[in-house]
Amino acid sequence: MSEHTVRFLPHEKSIKVQDGENLIRAAMDAGVHINASCGGEGVCGKCRVMIESGEVEGGITDRLKAGDREKGYRLACRASVRGDLTVLVPVESKVDISALTTQIPPRKTAVIRQVDFEELKEQGLFLPPVEKIYLELPPPTAQDNLPDATRLVSHLSINYNEHRLVVRLPVIRRLPDVLREENFKITATLARPVHEGRKSHIINVESGDTTGQNYAIAVDIGTTTIYGQLLDLISGEVMAEHGLFNAQISYGEDVISRIVHAEKPGGLERLSKVVTETINEIIANLVKKAAVDCDQISAITFAGNTTMTQLFLQINLKYIRRAPYVPASTIYPPIKATVLGLHLGDHVTALVYPAISSYVGGDIVAGVMGSGMYRTEKLTLYLDIGTNAEVVVGNKDWLACAACSAGPAFEGGGVEHGMRAAKGAIEDFLIDPITLEPMNITIGSVRPVGICGSGLITIVAVLFEMGIIDSQGKFDRDLDTPRIRKREDGIWEYVLAWEDITGIDRDITLSEIDIDNLIRAKGAIYSGCQTLLEEVGLGIEDVEEIILAGGFGSFVDLAKAMTIGLLPETDPEKVTFIGNGSLMGAKMSSLTNRIRRDVVEVTRKMTNFELSETTSYMDHYVAALFLPHTDLGKFPRLQKRLDEKRAAKKMNAVK
Amino acid sequence: MSEHTVRFLPHEKSIKVQDGENLIRAAMDAGVHINASCGGEGVCGKCRVMIESGEVEGGITDRLKAGDREKGYRLACRASVRGDLTVLVPVESKVDISALTTQIPPRKTAVIRQVDFEELKEQGLFLPPVEKIYLELPPPTAQDNLPDATRLVSHLSINYNEHRLVVRLPVIRRLPDVLREENFKITATLARPVHEGRKSHIINVESGDTTGQNYAIAVDIGTTTIYGQLLDLISGEVMAEHGLFNAQISYGEDVISRIVHAEKPGGLERLSKVVTETINEIIANLVKKAAVDCDQISAITFAGNTTMTQLFLQINLKYIRRAPYVPASTIYPPIKATVLGLHLGDHVTALVYPAISSYVGGDIVAGVMGSGMYRTEKLTLYLDIGTNAEVVVGNKDWLACAACSAGPAFEGGGVEHGMRAAKGAIEDFLIDPITLEPMNITIGSVRPVGICGSGLITIVAVLFEMGIIDSQGKFDRDLDTPRIRKREDGIWEYVLAWEDITGIDRDITLSEIDIDNLIRAKGAIYSGCQTLLEEVGLGIEDVEEIILAGGFGSFVDLAKAMTIGLLPETDPEKVTFIGNGSLMGAKMSSLTNRIRRDVVEVTRKMTNFELSETTSYMDHYVAALFLPHTDLGKFPRLQKRLDEKRAAKKMNAVK
Repeated sequence: MSEHTVRFLPHEKSIKVQDGENLIRAAMDAGVHINASCGGEGVCGKCRVMIESGEVEGGITDRLKAGDREKGYRLACRASVRGDLTVLVPVESKVDISALTTQIPPRKTAVIRQVDFEELKEQGLFLPPVEKIYLELPPPTAQDNLPDATRLVSHLSINYNEHRLVVRLPVIRRLPDVLREENFKITATLARPVHEGRKSHIINVESGDTTGQNYAIAVDIGTTTIYGQLLDLISGEVMAEHGLFNAQISYGEDVISRIVHAEKPGGLERLSKVVTETINEIIANLVKKAAVDCDQISAITFAGNTTMTQLFLQINLKYIRRAPYVPASTIYPPIKATVLGLHLGDHVTALVYPAISSYVGGDIVAGVMGSGMYRTEKLTLYLDIGTNAEVVVGNKDWLACAACSAGPAFEGGGVEHGMRAAKGAIEDFLIDPITLEPMNITIGSVRPVGICGSGLITIVAVLFEMGIIDSQGKFDRDLDTPRIRKREDGIWEYVLAWEDITGIDRDITLSEIDIDNLIRAKGAIYSGCQTLLEEVGLGIEDVEEIILAGGFGSFVDLAKAMTIGLLPETDPEKVTFIGNGSLMGAKMSSLTNRIRRDVVEVTRKMTNFELSETTSYMDHYVAALFLPHTDLGKFPRLQKRLDEKRAAKKMNAVK
Repeated sequence: MSEHTVRFLPHEKSIKVQDGENLIRAAMDAGVHINASCGGEGVCGKCRVMIESGEVEGGITDRLKAGDREKGYRLACRASVRGDLTVLVPVESKVDISALTTQIPPRKTAVIRQVDFEELKEQGLFLPPVEKIYLELPPPTAQDNLPDATRLVSHLSINYNEHRLVVRLPVIRRLPDVLREENFKITATLARPVHEGRKSHIINVESGDTTGQNYAIAVDIGTTTIYGQLLDLISGEVMAEHGLFNAQISYGEDVISRIVHAEKPGGLERLSKVVTETINEIIANLVKKAAVDCDQISAITFAGNTTMTQLFLQINLKYIRRAPYVPASTIYPPIKATVLGLHLGDHVTALVYPAISSYVGGDIVAGVMGSGMYRTEKLTLYLDIGTNAEVVVGNKDWLACAACSAGPAFEGGGVEHGMRAAKGAIEDFLIDPITLEPMNITIGSVRPVGICGSGLITIVAVLFEMGIIDSQGKFDRDLDTPRIRKREDGIWEYVLAWEDITGIDRDITLSEIDIDNLIRAKGAIYSGCQTLLEEVGLGIEDVEEIILAGGFGSFVDLAKAMTIGLLPETDPEKVTFIGNGSLMGAKMSSLTNRIRRDVVEVTRKMTNFELSETTSYMDHYVAALFLPHTDLGKFPRLQKRLDEKRAAKKMNAVK
């Protein structure tokens, strides 16, 4: 795809974008504010810009006056970049222009890291857990009437140097007919031992040569969403991916309410059943999408937090939510997929990622495995942000972990207009420093209906850095804009979008209560990281790399996350994003036994810290209940920017 | 119990019997003929004897004339020995007395061998496959909040030196509540690995101390009958035993008809289901008889022939009955009892004895293991006689086996009045050499209804040795008795019991066709033994010990079996009877892992010979179609007796 350069005036900022990029998103990425409160649907008509030169597509709606159109005005939110452009953004006064020099850092998300299957092979780490071998056995005769199973095992032993083989009962059951279907030409599926020298299991036999078809499924069982991937075990490719809401949601949004439900009579079985149904639906969908034969799926791997895993496996988990938070087990034996009610062949064994503790689950272990953190030399901070945030620090020699209850702010909970990252959620935001008019960009470029987690971080960071809220999250009461107002109940709020241009029947606002909830959430995570590092004798400044995981992480503007003090301030280049770490780990285990072997060592090595038992945690937490933190010295870059802004403001005031 | 001596006149034969022994059975055991055709029910009134001295109980019925009673006559079949006796048996002539000197050898059954559990312990062979350990775990605290499963495993590791433990999913599921029921005092059930150093599985946990209750079940799945034993794993005692007809009988009497049925749609599942039902019935009965808690059964072991085993396990067995007679497998992995539909706890694993071939099954392997044949120095012949007879020869260094189709004669099939060993079956027999009147003894001492296998052997042996039939099984047409007659179809037969005293509405007879069927059956077995021994370069005379197995063997009069040429002629002291070898092996495997370990080696060591593929088999078979054999030189003791009888006959003729 071709790239174009877009130059914004009077800001004199340029940015390179892909052909077809939306113009308002280009402005946002360039850190150029354009009034836009309707999220990008072209309803408010405020994002009027003049195309001084170059070609755009679209951007003409009935919100644009006929005269404006001829003059070269377009609605930025409806315009696509089709060539190098020079765009003039209308500003209302000279002051506006000077304000443009005090921009906050441009949007910067983490580098996405994906494991390369070829690299895995090159490193000798590719030890497929399930392999198919095509065999041509000599048919029996009166002089050679070995039992069928013995014939198979002997042939593998003599011709393939395969020893210590176990033939499972279902294979014995069907072996006679399968052998005779194509004159003793068969494909045997072998499940490899995790540890070399242990037994391989012959889990399946098929007539003829089916070695070209061998698939696995990896599943992340999230509290909210369940994702599955169908993997080709030969190429290592992801053939299909599918996600669905965990049907357990109707029994409670968070893990605690699920546990409470599980304690009711029949509750555990019910929750297990519904999550199994969701998983089966995902499997059916994956098989359809990838157009493969379901019988050719040889393995399935699961990762999920401790509660999700144990609900699925129908393990009694009522003590997880009671001090001292003891789970039944953190290790799960391999289980036949059919025993778990999965719609897969009877030869498929389900592998379930081990957990560390009640609140650091298999999803985190999977992330640590999948990201390769356990093999790195560098001191790494692994962070999975959700309602419960989990933190892992360490490297190839040691690992420590902790969980902190962040509350649901990052997932849209506890925030009046908070919502999940879905269509209509404000995901990006800028504000005009003079007019205080917002620039809202929504997921799907439709009328805003709420604020998602990453949007919330950005909004609060921008409001703070622009001096509209102070370090305690309180609005500057003196600002002259109808968008900042006091509610009837005395709470102050900022109106992101007026009722007439929202997708709901009222204004979308962000109140001091919402901001406070975000500060508590980010404070819990930051102090969790800090406490955990201190427990192992280190400081947050020792961290050499940060790995972000979770659906959330992909959209977080790292600079903004550092501005509010969610992440320690560091070079954004050191932050990588692995997306769904849980799914990535499940995928890796499906592809290579090496991970399955290493995970035993990793879980043994990883020390769990109960933050509630750590006295310093509360002190750190209270200190973190500010933007970005009581100790601004921990955020020197931000401090420098704030100082500059303060100086510029004074200058303006002097003018 | 006290013993009494019974002296029979005019025979001048004495025998020691237990107090209360039936007088006619005492006579039979002493080799004293008393006319008795009604089996011992007191109906024919022919067994009138005079008590010359001593005390008997009973023996008085309305068949005894009033005068006779006063004279001291009693019906032997209704009289019990209560003190030392002298009994006069009425004889019709002086000739009778001389004939008494040419008696055939007295009844002699094999020595019954049972494995001694204490001896097993002393020899260090007692390695219980399932063990219970009582544990008092430290309850978790905030500082020690290990997962429950880890707490259990660590405790076992530190305090009991138990390493390499696997905690199964069902245990994980219930562990939390079980631990907290009696303040972390629990009993753990450990399934031991067959091979040292492998993993032990924690298969069950119970609150409190239940180490006193630990049971296993051993099951022999016979084609006709299924036997179960409930074993105390602490004392090694058999707590209860129960047998039931295999409900599969309604789908065919023999293995072939069962296989044929299994090939029909749904047939295999149906046969599996009905045998499982029979087994469940036996389990329920055992638990009731032994008054134990079903949940305290920790293990179950099965042994059965290849067909019975594979029908139970729902293994496709259609190629078993087709040349080259290839079974699906001869080794079966451990299987969860619940998966097999057994009404046992979900912690119970079913172990199934491996087979050697399609026709030498797990029942034979179990017998070889249970009898200890595989550990002996002596060349041993192991013989399990049924419709299919299986032969094993060898010792601790080598083993060879073969199966021969004997036909159903020994189980009452192919013989007009043949029947299973049940109430009313003639099980013992003598004949008056002059009057040719029979002495029938039936199982249960009731009116005869038929002839069981061991009875058949005895009758034919007696008829042959008394010269009533010749070596081809043909009656002496010149004998003057209404009991030997030519049927309308030209077939000669002997009337064992006239209609009026039988339990059926017609005469009970034995025809030349019946005798021929017996000769074919015994010929198949004898030539099977002979061929197998020849294949390994030995002769029947090299056999140092004979082990008889099968329900049949316990009642067989060894001398008679040698007379007809079913068994090679040898010292009866060298013959031991182990009863149900299959059940014995299943029991032994339930008690000690040593057997389970050794069985792998034994099955590897045992060479199967297909007699149908052995050219000499047919020659041996044809030679064995005589009483006792074409080559009488193989039976020197019998030859000597026959010579003596012939001489005595001549003497009588001269007189």
